[in-house]
Amino acid sequence: MPNFVSLPGFRDFYPDDLAVRDYIFRVWRDVARRYGFQEYDGPPLEPTELYIEKSGPEIVQQLYNFADKGDREVALRPEMTPTLARMVGARAGGMRKPVKWFAIPQLFRYERQQRGRLREHFQLNFDIVGDEGVGADVELLAAAIDVCRAFGLTADDFVARISDRRLLRALLVHAGVPEDRLSLVYNIVDKLEREGPDGVGERLSREAGLGPSVVSEVLAIFAHRDFDAVRNAYGSVEEIGEPIARMHQLFDDLEAMGLSRFVRFDLGIVRGLAYYTGIVFELFDVRGELRAIAGGGRYDDLMGRVSPADLPALGFGMGDVVLKELLIDRGLLPSLSPGVDDYVIGVTPDERSEVLRLVRALRDAGRSVDYSLRPLGVGKQLKAASGMGARRALILGPDEVAAGVVVARDMAAGTEERVPLTSLFPEELSLS
Amino acid sequence: MPNFVSLPGFRDFYPDDLAVRDYIFRVWRDVARRYGFQEYDGPPLEPTELYIEKSGPEIVQQLYNFADKGDREVALRPEMTPTLARMVGARAGGMRKPVKWFAIPQLFRYERQQRGRLREHFQLNFDIVGDEGVGADVELLAAAIDVCRAFGLTADDFVARISDRRLLRALLVHAGVPEDRLSLVYNIVDKLEREGPDGVGERLSREAGLGPSVVSEVLAIFAHRDFDAVRNAYGSVEEIGEPIARMHQLFDDLEAMGLSRFVRFDLGIVRGLAYYTGIVFELFDVRGELRAIAGGGRYDDLMGRVSPADLPALGFGMGDVVLKELLIDRGLLPSLSPGVDDYVIGVTPDERSEVLRLVRALRDAGRSVDYSLRPLGVGKQLKAASGMGARRALILGPDEVAAGVVVARDMAAGTEERVPLTSLFPEELSLS
Repeated sequence: MPNFVSLPGFRDFYPDDLAVRDYIFRVWRDVARRYGFQEYDGPPLEPTELYIEKSGPEIVQQLYNFADKGDREVALRPEMTPTLARMVGARAGGMRKPVKWFAIPQLFRYERQQRGRLREHFQLNFDIVGDEGVGADVELLAAAIDVCRAFGLTADDFVARISDRRLLRALLVHAGVPEDRLSLVYNIVDKLEREGPDGVGERLSREAGLGPSVVSEVLAIFAHRDFDAVRNAYGSVEEIGEPIARMHQLFDDLEAMGLSRFVRFDLGIVRGLAYYTGIVFELFDVRGELRAIAGGGRYDDLMGRVSPADLPALGFGMGDVVLKELLIDRGLLPSLSPGVDDYVIGVTPDERSEVLRLVRALRDAGRSVDYSLRPLGVGKQLKAASGMGARRALILGPDEVAAGVVVARDMAAGTEERVPLTSLFPEELSLS
Repeated sequence: MPNFVSLPGFRDFYPDDLAVRDYIFRVWRDVARRYGFQEYDGPPLEPTELYIEKSGPEIVQQLYNFADKGDREVALRPEMTPTLARMVGARAGGMRKPVKWFAIPQLFRYERQQRGRLREHFQLNFDIVGDEGVGADVELLAAAIDVCRAFGLTADDFVARISDRRLLRALLVHAGVPEDRLSLVYNIVDKLEREGPDGVGERLSREAGLGPSVVSEVLAIFAHRDFDAVRNAYGSVEEIGEPIARMHQLFDDLEAMGLSRFVRFDLGIVRGLAYYTGIVFELFDVRGELRAIAGGGRYDDLMGRVSPADLPALGFGMGDVVLKELLIDRGLLPSLSPGVDDYVIGVTPDERSEVLRLVRALRDAGRSVDYSLRPLGVGKQLKAASGMGARRALILGPDEVAAGVVVARDMAAGTEERVPLTSLFPEELSLS
């Protein structure tokens, strides 16, 4: 009597769990539909090289990768963007731009050190390919915000923090950071919230080798807590003018869309991944108790690295795990008990044919119907109906069959009425 | 400029392909809902041992299996039944029986010799656990048939061929086949359709070592082409009476459900897999051009092999690939062009705010809406609207904004009318 269990970090979705997952997917898909994004999917298994090309060889440590029986190096997908880039790239010539696509892939990461953590999750991905203008950033951000709103989350629950790699770069260069130290500085200031200005200043000096005045200039950049302050301070500097104007347009457009209350300018949002090239954003719960709800931005250089089509692109991802935690925490998960419309009951085994006939007629008419697969007493059948959340029980005994009626019991109200069988058999339904 | 491609045997689902997949999944889910089956899912990666326990060590040749970084032997799931058995087994005590579950997993097989063939597909799985009566077989068969009917397939398109392992076994033993030769004989008679009675007779003699009279008795069994003939010939034999009565009940119940025209008794349906224990069936296209559309049956011994819950069970699987071929062949795939409800057009860049405001109001009201992310002339915007199948274009120029109206163009009819903007902004929608 063996007792197999699932692999550590992998979830079983029992019907109650799957109902929640399905609810989340349905809301995701509805927002995508309203925004005119089209769903796509790729293989869960891809050549390992695709991920190395995007993220460098270090990524392999975190992959479920192996050599298949044909000696191909393959990996379970850890993210969707390389697959998107590969697919769009292969057909880019014949596609209308911008491409607006979404997907809900299951993603896999093997992180050896973090036992107890999930090794798979589902992630909503929205991407726009083929438009380098800020209008595309506006559309993507609005979609990310509306996904949260569609679950009932409000500006009291979440905020999108927005930055721009090009603006940050221009500001850092203006502050005196040498070009070859920029990546390092990004990584350090990314920790500003956690380590504070003093800790970050110390690391800028020690790890990035910046002089005291440069460190002070860099920290001054991040002391500006809203966009107007940054615009007033640097708007007239020539090489910073363009990213400032772009960010200005972004906020103006979001205001026209009525979404200002969901966004906050925050230069500290660097998004660790080196491949972002423009506006980046992360959605956080306002209480700051959870990891980021979603994150994304512009990655104009990636398409050209994994495909023949060198197109500008941007996208965001939102995982199912943090979102579900947040919805539970805010009491926003609706009740998802499945139930059935009708449970058909035969009083004696003699009514079996009539029961089966009625079951099928109701199902053909689109109703969800269950019944006892084996002979049972009426009491036990009613109990089964109640146990599975049936909304109506339809009871057929010898008298009912003879009279051509059925006893319809409203399971919630406990009321019963006799209705003609013909009223349950739509005329167009022929069972011949 | 590298050019990555997907792995051989794996499909990319571009939006047009995904629309077909989504249509198939929606129909599958709708039938499940009408039948009161609940959806579940498990991990795509499971311990390799789970599949060895069910199917024997030979299965490993066909698996995508590997050792993960924690040295666990794991495999991409080649089928769903072991996961189902594991999951139900783990919680069987607290579950209402029968358990009626369905799933739509992606399944993986690595078959080295068959290049060009798919190595993944999606498979609908319906299973019933915890009921050993023939009523459960009826319910499962009816569901399999109704899945096909839900796609518009008729009795002219497909037929369910039905057999019973216990009946076949009793008939073969009655014909004189020794118990220890039964598995071998199953495998040989499974080829009856392809190899004909002469070929099978020769193999029964040579490979199974049966004498001429036993071979003749065995072939006589399969010469009966309908159930009544078998019942007349063997119904009075004591040890065959029970499986005959069971099959009789099955056909009676299917007739009560009006499904007789979709089923055919066929003892030659053996279903190669050794784990079936009772009624088995396969759904074929009537023209016989494709592989089986679906197949399944009763497997009462499996649950006890992979879990602590030794429960009777039965199920069927239906893949997306053969089904899609059949639907295309019969002209039954509906047109699935996505389009959007509205495409909002600004005549000059000055209308940008009004365009964004209208776009969001319409999306908030549940409509699918697109617009140009960058400034474009009206002609190009109309062309984009037409190219993506928008049903209505809403055009805002300076005059319209001043007058509080919008020009609504019916894209199919080519007609236009001016409508007040307020009529497009439901009162309850506040953009503040």
